[in-house]
Amino acid sequence: MFSKAVVKYVKSLQVKKYRSQHQAFVVEGAKSVLELLQSDFEVQHLFVTESFKQEHTAILAKGFKYDIVTEKDLVAAGTFTSNNAVLAVASMRKLQPLRLQEKDFVIALDDIRDPGNLGTIIRIADWYGIEHVVCSDTCADFYNPKVISATMGSFTRIKVHYLNLPEWLEQHHSKYKIYGASLAGENLHHMQLRPEGIVVLGNEANGIRPEVARQVNQLIKIPAFGKAESLNVATATAIIIDNFKRNA
Amino acid sequence: MFSKAVVKYVKSLQVKKYRSQHQAFVVEGAKSVLELLQSDFEVQHLFVTESFKQEHTAILAKGFKYDIVTEKDLVAAGTFTSNNAVLAVASMRKLQPLRLQEKDFVIALDDIRDPGNLGTIIRIADWYGIEHVVCSDTCADFYNPKVISATMGSFTRIKVHYLNLPEWLEQHHSKYKIYGASLAGENLHHMQLRPEGIVVLGNEANGIRPEVARQVNQLIKIPAFGKAESLNVATATAIIIDNFKRNA
Repeated sequence: MFSKAVVKYVKSLQVKKYRSQHQAFVVEGAKSVLELLQSDFEVQHLFVTESFKQEHTAILAKGFKYDIVTEKDLVAAGTFTSNNAVLAVASMRKLQPLRLQEKDFVIALDDIRDPGNLGTIIRIADWYGIEHVVCSDTCADFYNPKVISATMGSFTRIKVHYLNLPEWLEQHHSKYKIYGASLAGENLHHMQLRPEGIVVLGNEANGIRPEVARQVNQLIKIPAFGKAESLNVATATAIIIDNFKRNA
Repeated sequence: MFSKAVVKYVKSLQVKKYRSQHQAFVVEGAKSVLELLQSDFEVQHLFVTESFKQEHTAILAKGFKYDIVTEKDLVAAGTFTSNNAVLAVASMRKLQPLRLQEKDFVIALDDIRDPGNLGTIIRIADWYGIEHVVCSDTCADFYNPKVISATMGSFTRIKVHYLNLPEWLEQHHSKYKIYGASLAGENLHHMQLRPEGIVVLGNEANGIRPEVARQVNQLIKIPAFGKAESLNVATATAIIIDNFKRNA
């Protein structure tokens, strides 16, 4: 059973200020929590329904302390409109500062605001074996429950670095090729791309900011064959990465 | 100003039963409604805020009748949590039955339940110039406000046909190549694909149903380089279509 104090604590973690204060975040849903339990994140609290417990006795037996709660409890404390499985609170982890190696291939996000988009991009990075995602300070927060949920467990593997993007790109400008997605770019299908360097994706409505665009040395575009004005930024990221990776 | 009766009517259109009864649907947001006003859909009602009216006088002057309302009115009647622009009610249109031509390239969706996914796929089809999307009867409803919204205006151009998918595929089996997305498929990056035929994408959790899979004659997969178990179905659709279209 949830005490009122616990519900209050879990709910407070929906707000970035309290996540920072407690250095903790919430993970909801069976897929995400199962990945969490197999990762090196420290689990502070684990709340499971009776049916989740029965389905996953083996993994729960690995020394995890947990409380049995109802679906109603989980919905009251979390962000899902239905959750018949599990909710966990985990500790944030400290990332080592990102030091790029010569042939590294990373995604850089400039002001991606929608948590669902950020989470989906992290899942795409994980599919394509890209370990690091760089975010401008203005991007959605990695530990936002909607981001964590949209990654479908990939949040345990992908390292997301928040930094001053124009400055960081400037530091890497001379040693790395910096690509930027733009409707004014070169047709991806006509390029021979190697999966090395940095690919920058811009804000959902406004694209890449001018101070970031100045650091880009190759604009690229996904060719359009129809009449849609644009693609969702997560969709565009997936297509672009696939075009790089086909020559891996 | 909205009358109570109008609000009730607009709200009723969030439910498929009432959309069918009235043969009408709701369009929200500036981008979507502007595309609607330039399409051949018949507009029944148009509710605009003062600021939207001032920004779009030219298009509104083309003979559209409209009412001035507040943002609060729009939020009360619609599905958006904020809407400082516009809401329209339009009449459904009758589609001609789909008759494929020899070199046509269509997307077929088997039991795609999430409205956001369906809308995003319609937007992707529009980007790549694919006119027809075929849906199993169990897919999300094209006229669901969340589908319409996720298409970002592409709902005005793409024709979405609901039908008995296994039967329809069986009828086209001998004349068209039918591809199916599957983790057990052939690596897309190693194939020479022509954008002709039918590409089937399956349900978010369960993939393609067995009765649909029996009609597929080529399974294809997006190669994985990392550890994510799967990709979102809209993401996967985009990557697959891009691989076909690069040889267009």
